[in-house]
This record gives sequence, C-alpha cells and structure tokens, in this order.
Amino acid sequence: MQLYELELNDGRRISPFVWRVKLALAQKGIAADTIGIGFGDKDKIAFSGQGLVPVLRDGERVVSDSWDIACYLEDQYPDMPSIFGGPVGRGLARFVARWTDITMLGNLAVLMMPCVFDHVPERDRAYFRQDREKRFGMTLEQMREDPEGKIAAFRQILLPMRVCLRDQPFLSGDAPAYADFCVFGGFIWAASVSDYKLLSNDDLLYAWRERMMGRFEALISASPGVVFT
Amino acid sequence: MQLYELELNDGRRISPFVWRVKLALAQKGIAADTIGIGFGDKDKIAFSGQGLVPVLRDGERVVSDSWDIACYLEDQYPDMPSIFGGPVGRGLARFVARWTDITMLGNLAVLMMPCVFDHVPERDRAYFRQDREKRFGMTLEQMREDPEGKIAAFRQILLPMRVCLRDQPFLSGDAPAYADFCVFGGFIWAASVSDYKLLSNDDLLYAWRERMMGRFEALISASPGVVFT
Repeated sequence: MQLYELELNDGRRISPFVWRVKLALAQKGIAADTIGIGFGDKDKIAFSGQGLVPVLRDGERVVSDSWDIACYLEDQYPDMPSIFGGPVGRGLARFVARWTDITMLGNLAVLMMPCVFDHVPERDRAYFRQDREKRFGMTLEQMREDPEGKIAAFRQILLPMRVCLRDQPFLSGDAPAYADFCVFGGFIWAASVSDYKLLSNDDLLYAWRERMMGRFEALISASPGVVFT
Repeated sequence: MQLYELELNDGRRISPFVWRVKLALAQKGIAADTIGIGFGDKDKIAFSGQGLVPVLRDGERVVSDSWDIACYLEDQYPDMPSIFGGPVGRGLARFVARWTDITMLGNLAVLMMPCVFDHVPERDRAYFRQDREKRFGMTLEQMREDPEGKIAAFRQILLPMRVCLRDQPFLSGDAPAYADFCVFGGFIWAASVSDYKLLSNDDLLYAWRERMMGRFEALISASPGVVFT
C-alpha cells in the first residue's frame, strides 16, 4: 500500500487531510509506504484522476479524498480495529470532519499560511505566495499580523469540543476514532510549521492532545518537525 | 413512565432539551405520560433534587438532564431501537449535543427570547422578563431588533451541518439518531413560539427538517402550536 502526501522542507509532512489517513492507518494497524511530493508534483498523482493529496494506492485500487479513503479502509479491512464504530459513528464522523474543515481549519488558515510558506521549498514559493494571497485577498505579511488576536479567536471557537471533553476523554468517547483524527490532524499541521502556542496548558483540549500524542507517539515522532507547544 | 416538561400558553411545549428526550422516547417506541409545568412550578420537580426540566420518572428511578436521560434510556432499554448506535456514536452525539447548545441554540437565543415571552403565562411574565433581560444584558425590546441580521448569522453558523448533509440524509448517517434529535429539538423550539423563516426552502437543512418531520409526524402534530416555515 502506498500513500502519497505533501512534503515540504526538511521532510515536513503537513497536510491535515493526509494526517487523518495516517492516523486511520495506524489505528487499523495497516502499514503503508508514504511518498512525499511537492506542490509542483501534481503529475506524480495524475494516475488518481485529480491533483490533491492524500492519494492511496492499494494494489490495483486507487482512492483519493481523505473521507473516501477512510471509508475504503473501514469497508475493505473490517476485521481490523474500527475507525468509525458503526453506521452512526460514521455518519457523525462526517459531521465532525466538516466542522473541522470549516470551523477549526477555516479559523486557523490565515494564521498558518505564512508559517507554511516559511517551509515551502524555494522552487514553489512564488506559486504558493501568489495562490494563497489571491485566495485570502491579502498578502502573507498581512496574514502575519495580530497572531494573539487570531489565537484568542481560535481558542474560542473550540468551545463545543472543550465542553464535550469535560465529560469524556476523547471526542469519540472512551477511545479515539476518526473524528478525533480530524481535529488532531489540524493540530499536527499547525505544530509542523509554527511554534504558536495554540492551547494553554490548563485547556482540556491540551490534555486531550497529550492523550492523542500518547496513542500515536511512534507515528508522530517519525515525522520531522512536529513540536507541540 | 412520566416526563416533566415546560408548558406555556395554549399547551405549547417548548424546551429544546425536553424535545431531545421526547424524540428519543419516540425512536425507542417507549410511551411516557408527559406532565407540563410552568416557570413557577419548580416545587413540582423538587423530588428530582434540582429545578430544571426534563425530569424522567421511571418507576422508582428519577433522572434529570437530557443527556443523562438519553443514556439512561439507551442503557436501560437496550433491546429497543438505539439512539446512539454504539459507543463511538454515543461519544460523538455528546459532541453534537454540546455544539447544538453553544453554537446553534446560543446563536438563536436572543432572537427567540421575545417570542418565548409572547407565550409565557401572565403570572410568569415579570419573572421571565427580569431573568432573561439580566442574563442577556438587554431588554426584550432590544432583543427584537434586526431579526433579518440575526437569521442571516444563524444560517451561516449552520454551514458544517449543511455541508455534511450534501452527502448523507441525516447527521447520524442513513437514519436519524440522537445528534439529529438535538438539532431538530432546537428547530421545534423555534417553531413553537415564532414564525421567523429560519431556513430558506432550497437549504439542505430545510430538506433534512422535512425528513425529520416525516419520521416524527405523530409526535409533532400532537404538540400544540408547532408550525415550521
């Protein structure tokens, strides 16, 4: 099995969507060779019929899109530990995935783009700057402004998660599952490129993140440059 | 089995938290006598050791708090249709319950308080006005301002749900479960006291609400004053 993922300078693997898949593979105990590609390497995944990572190749089967890959792994390898815990768990995991995309990552994006830029290889920097400045309607330098304000807003929008974690150790209950992977993938993304302190030490989310790290320590420590603050 | 709930003028049963329980009971096919009480009737549920509805009395057992009641029903009546679909479904339902409390109901609250007031019995009006005006830091008349702006903001914050429903009929997947009850309960609350058009007809959430109505039509139509717009 091969997993194609985005790779930046010093071997940093940053895509939060790829991390969902890597955590799902780890939970299921499935080994995959990971193949890092750069922003300009879309031709290397052209066989998938689209241009975005993650792309999973399992023998003759090719699956792209993190959600579709998660469903593929769950359905194809049902005897390995579950990442959804049944149909309702799968349905609600999709809601949390979309909540993560829109609310969590959407809120972090402006703060993180300049940090990602700092780790983009020289050859892709012009492309990255132009693409992201157009998408966000501001310069990378403007995005760097007021990190404290952005972090405060970010902490605020995580309140539903924090309140949930008052009563249970993981979003998915007593053990982590795909919904936890979605949110944790966002934190790994941030920790791969920035040293912003996104969570205060007394935040229930900080303790949750530590529990997630404890569960997936081998995977995290094998990935260059991930430093939680 | 008896369920104590808030009752306003004309028999309106409005608590969004009670509705979570009523929908859970309906899903499980459990009949319960409902007992409506007013804002000033806390003494009638004093036996529960606290002053909030819902309160469920099942023989000798008394359970309060909508989440605790849901867990009680699922654990006590495991052979009836599930409202959680397993441990992961239960864990994630708690997250969606908290998201609903904070993001959905929190966003609707100011818009709805004056509408609730319009249906509060005369004897409780002074209490309700004073309590809510203190809690929100503004008068009921101020809360009534700019409903269009409040509705636009409300529609916006539901985006993660809307995007999720592009790909599946219910938040919980192919069939409704407790997470759907939480959100639907919020819409029933709103429809019981106001005629604001919270969802446009082409909203995926509108179609979802129609599906929920289809599933629980007997329950909804037996409750006075619920009119979806």
